[in-house]
Amino acid sequence: MKAKPTFSPLLDKLIDALRYLPGIGPKSAQRMAFYLLEQGKQQGLQLAEVLEEAIANMGHCQRCHTFSETDLCALCTNPKRDSQSLCIVGSPADVLAVEQTQAYRGLYFVLTGHLSPLDGIGPEEIGVPKLSARLKQGGIKEIILATNTTIEGEATAHYIAELAKHHNITTTRIAQGVPLGGELEFIDANTLARALASREAI
Amino acid sequence: MKAKPTFSPLLDKLIDALRYLPGIGPKSAQRMAFYLLEQGKQQGLQLAEVLEEAIANMGHCQRCHTFSETDLCALCTNPKRDSQSLCIVGSPADVLAVEQTQAYRGLYFVLTGHLSPLDGIGPEEIGVPKLSARLKQGGIKEIILATNTTIEGEATAHYIAELAKHHNITTTRIAQGVPLGGELEFIDANTLARALASREAI
Repeated sequence: MKAKPTFSPLLDKLIDALRYLPGIGPKSAQRMAFYLLEQGKQQGLQLAEVLEEAIANMGHCQRCHTFSETDLCALCTNPKRDSQSLCIVGSPADVLAVEQTQAYRGLYFVLTGHLSPLDGIGPEEIGVPKLSARLKQGGIKEIILATNTTIEGEATAHYIAELAKHHNITTTRIAQGVPLGGELEFIDANTLARALASREAI
Repeated sequence: MKAKPTFSPLLDKLIDALRYLPGIGPKSAQRMAFYLLEQGKQQGLQLAEVLEEAIANMGHCQRCHTFSETDLCALCTNPKRDSQSLCIVGSPADVLAVEQTQAYRGLYFVLTGHLSPLDGIGPEEIGVPKLSARLKQGGIKEIILATNTTIEGEATAHYIAELAKHHNITTTRIAQGVPLGGELEFIDANTLARALASREAI
Protein backbone atom coordinates (compact mmCIF):
# COMPACT_ATOMS: atom_id res chain seq x y z
CA MET A 1 0.00 0.00 0.00
CA LYS A 2 1.30 3.44 -0.89
CA ALA A 3 1.18 6.19 1.69
CA LYS A 4 -1.35 8.93 0.99
CA PRO A 5 0.11 11.80 -1.05
CA THR A 6 1.31 14.77 0.98
CA PHE A 7 1.79 18.38 -0.14
CA SER A 8 5.17 17.64 -1.78
CA PRO A 9 5.91 15.05 -4.51
CA LEU A 10 9.55 14.86 -3.37
CA LEU A 11 8.47 14.17 0.22
CA ASP A 12 6.12 11.46 -1.09
CA LYS A 13 9.00 9.90 -2.99
CA LEU A 14 11.14 9.82 0.15
CA ILE A 15 8.33 8.33 2.24
CA ASP A 16 7.74 5.63 -0.40
CA ALA A 17 11.45 4.79 -0.53
CA LEU A 18 11.64 4.49 3.27
CA ARG A 19 8.68 2.08 3.19
CA TYR A 20 10.90 -0.41 1.37
CA LEU A 21 12.66 -0.99 4.70
CA PRO A 22 11.38 -4.11 6.43
CA GLY A 23 8.97 -3.46 9.29
CA ILE A 24 8.36 0.19 8.32
CA GLY A 25 4.73 1.21 7.79
CA PRO A 26 3.38 4.50 6.40
CA LYS A 27 3.40 6.29 9.75
CA SER A 28 6.99 5.35 10.61
CA ALA A 29 8.15 6.24 7.10
CA GLN A 30 6.51 9.66 7.43
CA ARG A 31 8.17 10.25 10.78
CA MET A 32 11.55 9.22 9.38
CA ALA A 33 11.18 11.46 6.33
CA PHE A 34 10.34 14.55 8.42
CA TYR A 35 13.21 13.76 10.77
CA LEU A 36 15.69 13.34 7.90
CA LEU A 37 14.62 16.63 6.29
CA GLU A 38 14.62 18.63 9.52
CA GLN A 39 17.23 17.70 12.15
CA GLY A 40 18.74 14.68 10.40
CA LYS A 41 20.10 16.00 7.08
CA GLN A 42 23.70 15.16 7.91
CA GLN A 43 22.79 11.66 9.08
CA GLY A 44 20.58 11.16 6.05
CA LEU A 45 23.42 11.96 3.65
CA GLN A 46 25.71 9.67 5.65
CA LEU A 47 23.13 6.88 5.44
CA ALA A 48 22.76 7.33 1.67
CA GLU A 49 26.53 7.16 1.24
CA VAL A 50 27.01 4.07 3.42
CA LEU A 51 24.07 2.33 1.72
CA GLU A 52 25.62 2.86 -1.71
CA GLU A 53 29.04 1.79 -0.47
CA ALA A 54 27.75 -1.35 1.24
CA ILE A 55 25.54 -2.46 -1.64
CA ALA A 56 28.33 -1.89 -4.16
CA ASN A 57 31.14 -3.51 -2.21
CA MET A 58 29.60 -6.24 -0.10
CA GLY A 59 30.34 -9.67 -1.51
CA HIS A 60 30.53 -13.11 -0.01
CA CYS A 61 33.39 -14.89 1.76
CA GLN A 62 34.88 -17.38 -0.69
CA ARG A 63 35.18 -20.01 2.01
CA CYS A 64 32.01 -19.77 4.11
CA HIS A 65 29.80 -17.59 1.87
CA THR A 66 28.76 -15.16 4.61
CA PHE A 67 28.78 -11.42 3.81
CA SER A 68 32.29 -10.10 3.41
CA GLU A 69 33.90 -7.10 1.75
CA THR A 70 37.15 -9.09 1.49
CA ASP A 71 37.82 -12.45 -0.21
CA LEU A 72 37.78 -14.22 3.13
CA CYS A 73 35.70 -13.02 6.07
CA ALA A 74 37.00 -12.09 9.53
CA LEU A 75 35.70 -15.37 10.95
CA CYS A 76 37.41 -17.66 8.40
CA THR A 77 40.73 -15.82 8.78
CA ASN A 78 40.68 -15.71 12.58
CA PRO A 79 43.40 -18.15 13.76
CA LYS A 80 41.73 -18.43 17.19
CA ARG A 81 38.64 -20.15 15.76
CA ASP A 82 38.45 -23.95 15.95
CA SER A 83 38.79 -25.03 12.32
CA GLN A 84 37.63 -28.58 13.10
CA SER A 85 34.03 -27.50 13.81
CA LEU A 86 31.70 -26.31 11.08
CA CYS A 87 28.33 -24.79 11.87
CA ILE A 88 25.85 -24.86 8.96
CA VAL A 89 23.34 -22.01 8.82
CA GLY A 90 20.83 -20.72 6.26
CA SER A 91 21.82 -17.04 6.00
CA PRO A 92 24.44 -14.47 7.09
CA ALA A 93 21.94 -13.18 9.68
CA ASP A 94 22.02 -16.63 11.29
CA VAL A 95 25.83 -16.43 11.61
CA LEU A 96 25.31 -13.27 13.63
CA ALA A 97 22.64 -14.93 15.77
CA VAL A 98 25.00 -17.81 16.63
CA GLU A 99 27.95 -15.43 17.18
CA GLN A 100 25.91 -13.36 19.62
CA THR A 101 25.53 -16.40 21.88
CA GLN A 102 29.35 -16.31 22.36
CA ALA A 103 28.98 -20.07 22.83
CA TYR A 104 30.56 -21.26 19.57
CA ARG A 105 34.21 -20.89 18.57
CA GLY A 106 34.31 -22.88 15.33
CA LEU A 107 33.80 -21.89 11.70
CA TYR A 108 30.65 -21.51 9.61
CA PHE A 109 29.24 -22.47 6.29
CA VAL A 110 26.37 -20.31 5.05
CA LEU A 111 23.82 -21.90 2.75
CA THR A 112 21.81 -19.56 0.56
CA GLY A 113 18.50 -20.58 2.08
CA HIS A 114 16.89 -23.91 2.81
CA LEU A 115 15.78 -26.80 0.58
CA SER A 116 12.27 -26.36 -0.77
CA PRO A 117 11.66 -28.82 -3.64
CA LEU A 118 8.14 -27.52 -4.29
CA ASP A 119 9.60 -24.07 -5.02
CA GLY A 120 12.31 -25.60 -7.20
CA ILE A 121 15.00 -24.98 -4.59
CA GLY A 122 17.26 -28.01 -4.55
CA PRO A 123 20.78 -28.68 -3.21
CA GLU A 124 22.50 -26.76 -6.05
CA GLU A 125 20.44 -23.63 -5.38
CA ILE A 126 21.43 -23.43 -1.71
CA GLY A 127 25.15 -24.02 -2.28
CA VAL A 128 25.53 -27.68 -1.29
CA PRO A 129 28.17 -28.43 -4.01
CA LYS A 130 30.45 -25.81 -2.43
CA LEU A 131 29.91 -27.35 1.01
CA SER A 132 30.61 -30.78 -0.45
CA ALA A 133 33.92 -29.54 -1.87
CA ARG A 134 34.79 -28.05 1.48
CA LEU A 135 34.13 -31.34 3.28
CA LYS A 136 36.25 -33.24 0.75
CA GLN A 137 39.24 -31.07 1.62
CA GLY A 138 39.18 -32.72 5.06
CA GLY A 139 40.08 -31.26 8.45
CA ILE A 140 36.52 -31.00 9.73
CA LYS A 141 35.63 -33.27 12.64
CA GLU A 142 32.20 -32.03 13.64
CA ILE A 143 29.30 -30.51 11.79
CA ILE A 144 26.67 -28.63 13.78
CA LEU A 145 23.42 -28.21 11.89
CA ALA A 146 21.94 -24.86 12.88
CA THR A 147 19.41 -24.47 10.09
CA ASN A 148 15.93 -23.16 10.95
CA THR A 149 13.58 -25.48 12.82
CA THR A 150 10.99 -25.09 10.05
CA ILE A 151 10.06 -27.94 7.70
CA GLU A 152 12.52 -26.61 5.09
CA GLY A 153 15.23 -26.19 7.69
CA GLU A 154 14.70 -29.75 8.96
CA ALA A 155 14.81 -31.16 5.43
CA THR A 156 18.03 -29.25 4.79
CA ALA A 157 19.54 -30.53 8.05
CA HIS A 158 18.70 -34.13 7.15
CA TYR A 159 20.12 -33.76 3.67
CA ILE A 160 23.41 -32.41 4.96
CA ALA A 161 23.57 -35.03 7.70
CA GLU A 162 23.50 -37.67 4.93
CA LEU A 163 26.25 -35.82 3.08
CA ALA A 164 28.37 -35.66 6.22
CA LYS A 165 27.90 -39.39 6.78
CA HIS A 166 29.69 -40.06 3.46
CA HIS A 167 32.65 -38.09 4.77
CA ASN A 168 32.56 -39.83 8.19
CA ILE A 169 32.05 -36.56 10.04
CA THR A 170 30.23 -36.46 13.39
CA THR A 171 27.06 -34.46 12.89
CA THR A 172 24.85 -32.84 15.50
CA ARG A 173 21.67 -30.79 15.33
CA ILE A 174 20.92 -27.86 17.67
CA ALA A 175 18.46 -28.93 20.39
CA GLN A 176 14.77 -28.25 19.98
CA GLY A 177 12.46 -27.79 22.94
CA VAL A 178 10.87 -25.19 25.18
CA PRO A 179 12.72 -21.82 24.94
CA LEU A 180 14.33 -20.46 28.11
CA GLY A 181 11.94 -18.41 30.20
CA GLY A 182 9.05 -20.20 28.47
CA GLU A 183 5.79 -20.68 30.37
CA LEU A 184 4.33 -24.07 29.48
CA GLU A 185 0.77 -22.85 29.06
CA PHE A 186 1.86 -20.53 26.23
CA ILE A 187 4.08 -23.02 24.37
CA ASP A 188 2.63 -24.47 21.17
CA ALA A 189 1.75 -28.18 21.21
CA ASN A 190 4.34 -29.22 18.59
CA THR A 191 7.19 -27.66 20.53
CA LEU A 192 6.03 -29.20 23.78
CA ALA A 193 5.60 -32.64 22.16
CA ARG A 194 9.15 -32.34 20.85
CA ALA A 195 10.44 -31.29 24.28
CA LEU A 196 8.78 -34.34 25.84
CA ALA A 197 10.15 -36.71 23.21
CA SER A 198 13.67 -35.28 23.62
CA ARG A 199 13.59 -35.23 27.44
CA GLU A 200 16.96 -35.53 29.14
CA ALA A 201 18.06 -37.28 32.31
CA ILE A 202 18.89 -34.81 35.09
CA MET B 1 24.64 2.79 22.19
CA LYS B 2 26.49 1.23 19.27
CA ALA B 3 25.42 -2.20 18.04
CA LYS B 4 27.89 -5.01 18.82
CA PRO B 5 30.44 -5.53 16.03
CA THR B 6 29.62 -8.27 13.55
CA PHE B 7 31.95 -10.23 11.27
CA SER B 8 32.15 -7.40 8.71
CA PRO B 9 33.22 -3.77 9.29
CA LEU B 10 31.15 -2.64 6.29
CA LEU B 11 28.06 -4.37 7.67
CA ASP B 12 28.72 -2.67 11.03
CA LYS B 13 28.92 0.69 9.29
CA LEU B 14 25.59 0.10 7.56
CA ILE B 15 23.91 -1.01 10.80
CA ASP B 16 25.24 2.09 12.59
CA ALA B 17 23.99 4.37 9.80
CA LEU B 18 20.51 2.79 9.91
CA ARG B 19 20.38 3.38 13.65
CA TYR B 20 20.30 7.13 12.95
CA LEU B 21 16.71 6.65 11.82
CA PRO B 22 14.22 7.60 14.54
CA GLY B 23 12.71 4.65 16.40
CA ILE B 24 15.22 2.13 15.04
CA GLY B 25 17.11 0.07 17.65
CA PRO B 26 20.07 -2.28 17.12
CA LYS B 27 17.92 -5.33 16.29
CA SER B 28 15.79 -3.52 13.69
CA ALA B 29 18.88 -1.94 12.15
CA GLN B 30 20.49 -5.40 11.85
CA ARG B 31 17.38 -6.80 10.23
CA MET B 32 17.23 -3.88 7.77
CA ALA B 33 20.91 -4.21 6.88
CA PHE B 34 20.62 -7.93 6.10
CA TYR B 35 17.47 -7.29 4.10
CA LEU B 36 19.09 -4.49 2.08
CA LEU B 37 22.16 -6.61 1.28
CA GLU B 38 20.19 -9.75 0.38
CA GLN B 39 16.82 -9.24 -1.32
CA GLY B 40 16.69 -5.45 -1.15
CA LYS B 41 19.73 -4.22 -3.11
CA GLN B 42 17.68 -2.48 -5.75
CA GLN B 43 15.45 -0.82 -3.17
CA GLY B 44 18.47 0.15 -1.12
CA LEU B 45 20.10 1.95 -4.03
CA GLN B 46 16.81 3.63 -4.80
CA LEU B 47 16.50 4.76 -1.18
CA ALA B 48 20.04 6.16 -1.20
CA GLU B 49 19.33 8.10 -4.37
CA VAL B 50 16.01 9.52 -3.18
CA LEU B 51 17.54 10.46 0.17
CA GLU B 52 20.30 12.45 -1.53
CA GLU B 53 17.85 14.07 -3.92
CA ALA B 54 15.38 15.02 -1.19
CA ILE B 55 18.00 16.38 1.21
CA ALA B 56 19.66 18.40 -1.57
CA ASN B 57 16.51 19.81 -3.15
CA MET B 58 13.94 20.16 -0.39
CA GLY B 59 13.49 23.76 0.62
CA HIS B 60 10.65 25.69 2.19
CA CYS B 61 7.58 27.29 0.66
CA GLN B 62 8.19 31.04 0.50
CA ARG B 63 4.66 31.78 1.64
CA CYS B 64 3.83 29.19 4.32
CA HIS B 65 7.29 27.78 5.09
CA THR B 66 6.29 24.12 4.88
CA PHE B 67 8.58 21.73 2.99
CA SER B 68 8.53 22.38 -0.72
CA GLU B 69 10.82 21.66 -3.66
CA THR B 70 9.28 24.62 -5.50
CA ASP B 71 9.10 28.30 -4.46
CA LEU B 72 5.47 27.91 -3.46
CA CYS B 73 4.03 24.65 -2.17
CA ALA B 74 1.12 22.72 -3.67
CA LEU B 75 -1.17 23.94 -0.86
CA CYS B 76 -0.43 27.65 -1.30
CA THR B 77 -0.88 27.44 -5.07
CA ASN B 78 -4.08 25.39 -4.96
CA PRO B 79 -6.92 27.74 -6.09
CA LYS B 80 -9.49 25.50 -4.40
CA ARG B 81 -8.18 26.25 -0.92
CA ASP B 82 -9.94 28.91 1.13
CA SER B 83 -7.40 31.75 1.28
CA GLN B 84 -9.27 33.52 4.07
CA SER B 85 -8.42 30.86 6.68
CA LEU B 86 -4.91 30.42 8.03
CA CYS B 87 -4.01 27.46 10.22
CA ILE B 88 -0.86 27.99 12.32
CA VAL B 89 1.20 24.88 13.09
CA GLY B 90 4.64 24.19 14.56
CA SER B 91 6.18 21.97 11.86
CA PRO B 92 5.63 20.56 8.34
CA ALA B 93 4.66 17.23 9.94
CA ASP B 94 1.77 19.04 11.63
CA VAL B 95 0.53 20.28 8.23
CA LEU B 96 0.30 16.66 7.17
CA ALA B 97 -1.51 15.70 10.38
CA VAL B 98 -4.15 18.40 9.78
CA GLU B 99 -4.39 17.56 6.06
CA GLN B 100 -5.04 13.91 6.88
CA THR B 101 -8.19 14.87 8.76
CA GLN B 102 -9.62 16.15 5.42
CA ALA B 103 -11.53 18.58 7.63
CA TYR B 104 -9.69 21.79 6.76
CA ARG B 105 -9.68 23.52 3.38
CA GLY B 106 -7.79 26.73 4.18
CA LEU B 107 -4.10 27.62 4.04
CA TYR B 108 -1.28 27.12 6.52
CA PHE B 109 1.55 28.96 8.13
CA VAL B 110 4.32 26.79 9.51
CA LEU B 111 6.32 28.12 12.44
CA THR B 112 9.77 26.64 12.96
CA GLY B 113 8.92 25.24 16.38
CA HIS B 114 7.31 26.73 19.46
CA LEU B 115 8.27 29.58 21.78
CA SER B 116 10.58 28.51 24.59
CA PRO B 117 12.15 31.57 26.25
CA LEU B 118 14.24 29.45 28.64
CA ASP B 119 15.97 27.85 25.64
CA GLY B 120 16.42 31.24 23.99
CA ILE B 121 13.70 30.55 21.41
CA GLY B 122 11.74 33.74 20.96
CA PRO B 123 9.33 35.02 18.27
CA GLU B 124 12.14 35.73 15.76
CA GLU B 125 13.48 32.18 16.00
CA ILE B 126 10.14 30.58 15.15
CA GLY B 127 9.34 32.84 12.21
CA VAL B 128 6.80 35.24 13.72
CA PRO B 129 8.08 38.28 11.71
CA LYS B 130 7.24 36.44 8.49
CA LEU B 131 3.76 35.61 9.82
CA SER B 132 3.34 39.23 10.85
CA ALA B 133 4.18 40.41 7.35
CA ARG B 134 1.69 37.93 5.94
CA LEU B 135 -1.10 39.20 8.19
CA LYS B 136 -0.31 42.80 7.22
CA GLN B 137 -0.96 41.95 3.58
CA GLY B 138 -4.61 41.39 4.55
CA GLY B 139 -7.14 38.94 3.15
CA ILE B 140 -7.14 36.59 6.13
CA LYS B 141 -10.37 36.47 8.09
CA GLU B 142 -9.73 33.58 10.51
CA ILE B 143 -6.67 32.20 12.20
CA ILE B 144 -6.85 28.68 13.62
CA LEU B 145 -4.14 28.00 16.18
CA ALA B 146 -3.13 24.35 15.84
CA THR B 147 0.13 24.46 17.76
CA ASN B 148 0.92 21.59 20.15
CA THR B 149 -1.03 21.39 23.40
CA THR B 150 2.23 21.46 25.38
CA ILE B 151 3.27 24.42 27.53
CA GLU B 152 5.40 25.78 24.66
CA GLY B 153 2.59 25.24 22.16
CA GLU B 154 0.11 27.06 24.44
CA ALA B 155 2.50 29.97 24.94
CA THR B 156 2.97 30.20 21.18
CA ALA B 157 -0.79 30.12 20.59
CA HIS B 158 -1.34 32.96 23.08
CA TYR B 159 1.43 35.04 21.56
CA ILE B 160 -0.01 34.70 18.08
CA ALA B 161 -3.55 35.35 19.31
CA GLU B 162 -2.30 38.73 20.60
CA LEU B 163 -0.67 39.42 17.26
CA ALA B 164 -3.89 38.55 15.42
CA LYS B 165 -5.87 40.89 17.69
CA HIS B 166 -3.80 43.82 16.37
CA HIS B 167 -4.90 42.89 12.88
CA ASN B 168 -8.55 42.41 13.91
CA ILE B 169 -8.58 38.78 12.78
CA THR B 170 -10.92 36.22 14.40
CA THR B 171 -8.72 33.68 16.16
CA THR B 172 -9.66 30.20 17.35
CA ARG B 173 -7.72 27.44 19.08
CA ILE B 174 -8.26 23.73 18.34
CA ALA B 175 -10.37 22.13 21.10
CA GLN B 176 -8.70 20.29 23.94
CA GLY B 177 -10.39 17.45 25.79
CA VAL B 178 -10.75 13.69 25.93
CA PRO B 179 -9.60 12.05 22.64
CA LEU B 180 -12.16 10.07 20.66
CA GLY B 181 -12.38 6.46 21.77
CA GLY B 182 -10.84 7.47 25.11
CA GLU B 183 -11.75 5.50 28.21
CA LEU B 184 -12.05 7.88 31.12
CA GLU B 185 -10.16 5.72 33.60
CA PHE B 186 -7.04 5.91 31.41
CA ILE B 187 -7.17 9.66 30.68
CA ASP B 188 -4.66 11.79 32.58
CA ALA B 189 -6.08 14.17 35.19
CA ASN B 190 -5.02 17.39 33.41
CA THR B 191 -6.79 16.40 30.21
CA LEU B 192 -9.93 15.39 32.09
CA ALA B 193 -9.91 18.62 34.12
CA ARG B 194 -9.66 20.56 30.87
CA ALA B 195 -12.50 18.54 29.33
CA LEU B 196 -14.69 19.32 32.34
CA ALA B 197 -13.85 23.03 32.26
CA SER B 198 -14.58 23.22 28.51
CA ARG B 199 -17.79 21.18 28.66
CA GLU B 200 -20.31 21.91 25.96
CA ALA B 201 -24.09 22.03 25.95
CA ILE B 202 -25.64 19.08 24.08
